[in-house]
Order: sequence, then C-alpha cells, then structure tokens
Amino acid sequence: MSEGCVFIGGEFVSPEDARMSIFDAGFVWGDTVYDVTSTWAGWFFMLDEHLERFARSCAGFRLESPYGADEMRSILAECVARTGLDNCYVKLQLTRGVIPNQVRDPRLGAPEFVAYAMPYVWIWGEDKSRNGAALHVSGVERVSSKAIDARYKNYNRADFVQARFEAYDRGCDDALLVGADGALTEGPGYNVFVVKDGAVATPDANVLEGITRRAVAELCQEDGIPFSCRRVEPAELHSADEVFASTTAGGVMPVIRLGDRPIGNGHAGLLTSHIQSRYWSRREEGWHGTRVEDLLEPAEPKRSRP
Amino acid sequence: MSEGCVFIGGEFVSPEDARMSIFDAGFVWGDTVYDVTSTWAGWFFMLDEHLERFARSCAGFRLESPYGADEMRSILAECVARTGLDNCYVKLQLTRGVIPNQVRDPRLGAPEFVAYAMPYVWIWGEDKSRNGAALHVSGVERVSSKAIDARYKNYNRADFVQARFEAYDRGCDDALLVGADGALTEGPGYNVFVVKDGAVATPDANVLEGITRRAVAELCQEDGIPFSCRRVEPAELHSADEVFASTTAGGVMPVIRLGDRPIGNGHAGLLTSHIQSRYWSRREEGWHGTRVEDLLEPAEPKRSRP
Repeated sequence: MSEGCVFIGGEFVSPEDARMSIFDAGFVWGDTVYDVTSTWAGWFFMLDEHLERFARSCAGFRLESPYGADEMRSILAECVARTGLDNCYVKLQLTRGVIPNQVRDPRLGAPEFVAYAMPYVWIWGEDKSRNGAALHVSGVERVSSKAIDARYKNYNRADFVQARFEAYDRGCDDALLVGADGALTEGPGYNVFVVKDGAVATPDANVLEGITRRAVAELCQEDGIPFSCRRVEPAELHSADEVFASTTAGGVMPVIRLGDRPIGNGHAGLLTSHIQSRYWSRREEGWHGTRVEDLLEPAEPKRSRP
Repeated sequence: MSEGCVFIGGEFVSPEDARMSIFDAGFVWGDTVYDVTSTWAGWFFMLDEHLERFARSCAGFRLESPYGADEMRSILAECVARTGLDNCYVKLQLTRGVIPNQVRDPRLGAPEFVAYAMPYVWIWGEDKSRNGAALHVSGVERVSSKAIDARYKNYNRADFVQARFEAYDRGCDDALLVGADGALTEGPGYNVFVVKDGAVATPDANVLEGITRRAVAELCQEDGIPFSCRRVEPAELHSADEVFASTTAGGVMPVIRLGDRPIGNGHAGLLTSHIQSRYWSRREEGWHGTRVEDLLEPAEPKRSRP
C-alpha cells in the first residue's frame, strides 16, 4: 500500500496517511460515488468519459463536487505524476461528508472529494486477467437499479462481496450476478459479454455503463463484429462459444470456466483474444488518450531576464 | 460531535480523532455490519438481544469479530461511562478492514471493531419523535433481501438516502419504502406499524428485525393488543387508524401524516401514545435493562494492608 499518492483534504499524502472520519455519511449510509480510470504507458484512457460518468453519478446521488472537471483532471494528473509510474489505477470519489450530530439530513453534508493513483490493478491478478478466470453464477441477486441505480458507481456492494464468497466456496475466481427479473447483470466491477456465432452481446440493464465496455463496442464496430446491448439470459452463458469481461482494472478479460464446466476448449477464445490484443495495443498508442504531463499545472514561470 | 467516546484501534478517543483508512473494504465494498443500542437513565436496553443480532449480522456477512460478547459489553460500558451521560446512543460496528493492495479477496481482511457512545439521538428530533412526523411512501424501491439481507444490519443504505431526499422534496420528514414484491418494508432505520380496529401489524419480510419492534410486540402482548407480523400492503397505511414507527434512536414514534394527508385527526393516535408511554416508563424502570456500572471492568484492587 506504500506506493501511491492520495489527494485528501486538499493535500497530497501517502496511502498510509489517507484517513477519513468514521462519521462520514459516505461510509455509514453508503452515500458515496466514485469512478476508476487508469493510465497506461503514461496515457489516461477516455478520461473525459470517466469524468462525465462521475458527474452523472454525483448528480444521481445528489452530491455536489467541490471541484470542477478541470481541477479534477489536474489533481488526478498530479497524483499519477507523484507515483512516478506509467501504469496506474486512478480513483476519484465523493462522500457525503460528516453530518452535524443529532441530525440526519443529507442536505447538510459537506461533500469530501478524494482521489488517488496506485500501481495499476488487475482485478483477477495479471495472469488470470490476461489468460482467463473461472466464474460462478451466483445465487446472490444483484441489487436492483430501482433501489440503487447501478449506473451511478457507488460503494453499496455487499451483494458483490457475498457473491464472491460463494464463488470461492465453489472453486471459482469471481462471480456473475442475476437480477430480480432473471436477466444476467454484471460481476463485481466488470461487465460481461457472451459471444455466439461471431456476435457479441452484453446486458443492457441493471449494470454499470462501463467505459471499457464502450471501448469494446467501438473495437467490435471497427472490425465489423456484430455487437448488441440487450437482455442476456443466464442460460446464454452456457451455450456461448466464448465469454469475456471488461473493466478498467484488467481491460478485456477472458472467462474460461463457468462453475466446473470449461467454456469452449477451456482457453481464451479467438474473438476474445483478438479484442483483448487490439485493446492493449491501441492503448499503448494513446487511443482515446490524454498524456499525464499535459494535465499537470505548469511549473512557476521563470522570471524573465531584464 | 465533541461529546462522546469512541473505541477504535484498541483505544478510547474523542470523536474528532476517530478516523479510519479510506482503503478499508468496509467502506469501499459496503462490507460492514453494525448495531445500535442505547442507555436510558443509566440502563442498557436489551443489550444481549443487540449483541446477539450483531453476532448474526457478522456471521451473515462472514465477518469475524476480534472481540467476544463479554469484551464488547465492557467496551460499550466504558464508552458510555466516559461520556458521563445517562442517556446514550451506542453503536458497535465491524468493517472488513484493509485488504492487501492488488488483491480483492475479502478473506484476507483483518476486521476492525469500532464502538462509540454519544448523547442519545432522536432520529426525527425529540419533538417529532415524540409527537409525530410526516412520512412519504417513496418511489425508491427497498433493496431486496435476496441481494443484501436486511436482517444483517449494514451500511448499504443509498436507497434510504435517496428516499429521504424524495421525502424532503414533498415536504415530509422521512420515508417508507416498498419492496420489489409490492409489500411495505421499512424506513431508514425504523420499522413501521399500522393500527386498524385496535390491532397492530408490522411487515414480516425484507426488514431489519428490530429490537424495539420486539419490545413493541411484548408490550402489545402484555396488554392484550392483537399483534401480527405479516405482509403489509402499502394501501393499509392509508386506511389505518394509526401508524407508528419504532427504532432504538427514538423509541416508539407516531406517524401523523402520509404525504399531504393527515392520519386520523393528525395527532398521535391513542393506542400509539399508550405503547409509547409504556415503553418509556418501563425503560426508566430498567425493563430488560443492564446497569452500565455493572459492566465496567473493576478498578485495580487496592493493595491489601499487611
């Protein structure tokens, strides 16, 4: 945890020193929104898309950020620059803040903005994120967007945690959740895709509108691969030729087993590997990218000589 | 926030100094359980029932407390004693703790136990908690127990917060939520009861099994008031003779208006007032009570004289 830089309370500190009040309503009421972007080879990826989604999350939770988009860009770049790393996991979050004692009115909170950069995270570890993981279709239902809207990225994730425990119990690496309507939704921090007869489909409802998912749609479009965002039945996972997942913290990740049953030949599928390879090679080229150094506040100008 | 005493990291500190890592999975994954008990006139109320429910919440979230029930009793009593107050709001919580970086396995967390005592909280303020509040039946759906089990008291409460915003928009004090199955559930931190023709009913599913709700059931039984725990339709709120709520932080609380429509004559109902009055008078007598001082660790024994 020592590598990394956190912006909190208006200062840049080390992760060990990044502490918050236990009374922050962002914690005790799950009243926090966040977003995760990344840098790869010194490029932020789709940064504006992440900032726009963060703004939608804030609005959806009725939270007002004390910083505008330009300020947030500078803060994120400064966090990354201070790590000295080219490949970073970069988070921004907004909590409701501490509400005065004896009062429960969220309108009285003073929202607290926090951001940080850490070494790039592979949510399944680098090997499994690149080469494939085993998923369990959980009996834990995904929280409905009618209760807590999954489009607003937030920390009400206890369903995900319990689904992951269930997955471990069954010898799997992670989980997929089904909604109250019986449709497939998403996993803890990633969207899911089924590939059948050369066409890609991903669930359209009760899910986070992933930025990497958007990148996958774009890559499919460029290559003429049919892509649809629609209701996906859990049974389609089992009849799929390939299954993969997408997330900022891992990119395009093959799924090679469901429960105890291999998908296809038990290795990453051809179409999945193709999209994954295109995703990473384009990222190295700066696709949808913003150079970290271009966002840094200029150093103090040197005094011009007389 | 200055009155109060917090036990955190094995020490007793002031609320201002009670800080946690922003990386605690209890925060970022909503992976925390808690309970709230109270003291009134120096008596803890139904303390063992609260500790038993806390133990069920921990087990339900697969969290293991570093302290046993006897240690927790002593810690809570010490927190209360250090406030010097007779009437306290007393919380205990267990977070998953910080998970090593680059890893998402909740089994690797080192759970952190925190407890605190503060001046007694009336969730609707003392006046409205005693004399009645206006509630809004929210369009925000209550999170389903199939996703996050409401019996395990936890901080995944964003549905409650948004429901409360909706209530404020409509000139109400707080909210009631309906579940995906169309049945009435609960409000943010309280159970709800409808009274019709002298009989009391409260929702049986998708709700926290409130300790004050249990006390209400007991008071009804003692007085021969029919009490049932069953499916309650939202429409029953509108046809009810009386409506009330129960919570540790407010006791038995009349509901006197739903949206813009008064319930009955717009004042606390007779049966509600009777139960409320019995609740508070019995608490002052030490009903289901444990004296705070009886739980304090004995002071160091004086050296016996030779």
